[in-house]
Amino acid sequence: MSEMTLAEQQHDRPPLDISVRTATGSGRTLLAAFDDALLSAGVANFNLIALSSVIPPGSSIREGVTEPLAGEHGDRLYCVMSVGYADHPGEIVSAGLGWATDATSGGLFVEHSGGSEQSVTEQIHLSLEDMSRNRGGGYTNIQHAVANAHCDDKPVCALAIAAYQVVPWGGDV
Amino acid sequence: MSEMTLAEQQHDRPPLDISVRTATGSGRTLLAAFDDALLSAGVANFNLIALSSVIPPGSSIREGVTEPLAGEHGDRLYCVMSVGYADHPGEIVSAGLGWATDATSGGLFVEHSGGSEQSVTEQIHLSLEDMSRNRGGGYTNIQHAVANAHCDDKPVCALAIAAYQVVPWGGDV
Amino acid sequence: MSEMTLAEQQHDRPPLDISVRTATGSGRTLLAAFDDALLSAGVANFNLIALSSVIPPGSSIREGVTEPLAGEHGDRLYCVMSVGYADHPGEIVSAGLGWATDATSGGLFVEHSGGSEQSVTEQIHLSLEDMSRNRGGGYTNIQHAVANAHCDDKPVCALAIAAYQVVPWGGDV
Repeated sequence: MSEMTLAEQQHDRPPLDISVRTATGSGRTLLAAFDDALLSAGVANFNLIALSSVIPPGSSIREGVTEPLAGEHGDRLYCVMSVGYADHPGEIVSAGLGWATDATSGGLFVEHSGGSEQSVTEQIHLSLEDMSRNRGGGYTNIQHAVANAHCDDKPVCALAIAAYQVVPWGGDV
Repeated sequence: MSEMTLAEQQHDRPPLDISVRTATGSGRTLLAAFDDALLSAGVANFNLIALSSVIPPGSSIREGVTEPLAGEHGDRLYCVMSVGYADHPGEIVSAGLGWATDATSGGLFVEHSGGSEQSVTEQIHLSLEDMSRNRGGGYTNIQHAVANAHCDDKPVCALAIAAYQVVPWGGDV
Repeated sequence: MSEMTLAEQQHDRPPLDISVRTATGSGRTLLAAFDDALLSAGVANFNLIALSSVIPPGSSIREGVTEPLAGEHGDRLYCVMSVGYADHPGEIVSAGLGWATDATSGGLFVEHSGGSEQSVTEQIHLSLEDMSRNRGGGYTNIQHAVANAHCDDKPVCALAIAAYQVVPWGGDV
């Protein structure tokens, strides 16, 4: 890409509008609980492709989004996702995303899940602090979003998802 | 996409021809057993990218397909996949896909695996019934395809895969 | 694709330059250890999309690469990956890739991880031998690259990764 001007790069790489969504769901199977959480998060009708979790420079990150993501039924959705399940009555599960951005170089997401919100939040901070230090610092403003689900009788799912981009079928062939 | 005419959308998004394939395989490692099942299913020479499992509207779904999928060695294949392994002599494993389609909005796949075909089929129905109800009904005609493998001595793999689309390298850069 | 000339195919499908990288990492969480290994391997700032592991014909495979892979922070990276973790003091983990190529039809990668390099290497050979035999032989020249990590106190990660192709955002929409 080195022969491209910055303007051409900007044209080719529009900033991503990343929406961070948290939700819980329940169902008679773990899969149905996951789907129920995806519905509440507004992303149930996409084909999810999970990414490991880097934020391109210039991306906007909107938190607490719940409205259905625009796109056609069955389109692919690139996303970063944290999922946890609980299927014993009384069991609690938490799933969270953490993120930190740098003014110029973009940012980083981390995914953690576990038995309590406190544990998940602590792991998010430990991971991002280590990852920032290994890059020379700079990723200092750590934020997080965690979903907590409690199993009464049916399996439950806790979900935190960052929706990057919807890609329709046919565009890449 | 709202400014596109329906005809333009149709042009951009040709209906997918989804083939559902089931197979079993065996090998000296779990990975070799998986590869053997992929060979029997006609999709061993692709780079699989797993989708979570929504059927675009207008897609055709052909069941029981075994002929090798068209494409070059190493192309990417977007697919929905259910895989199970058994590596103790006498152990049985089943892996299945279920699906239901709605006349207008497309459909849904679910993936389940377990120790018996009956259990897998039951989970498929439970998941799809819950997922349909949460969408207001409409996904009523549930179908499924299940592979069953029995471990004699070497590890075995049971595979059910829905092949969505082959994408050659270079097309998306 | 049968109506295309070979030259057209070559134009559409430039050979992939696949770099095989091994590294280890440590951190206060498994995720931080994984990220640390990705940094050492030169691929930490990409969004990884894991492939199951076929080598297109004509690809070059460069081993022992450590320099950072070219691309923008947050671009997608298609890759084949083997990852292992150890988080008990004294525990050892090995993660490796094996590959074999055929003169005309491309090649195959396999991923294995485990408690010793010897076990990982043996599984790599067993898998590739079975996979070659099931394809009528031809994939005979087996190579491998294995990373070994030892847990002193903090969690460690062993990583072997084959980087296929970087894809910027926006190119496929």
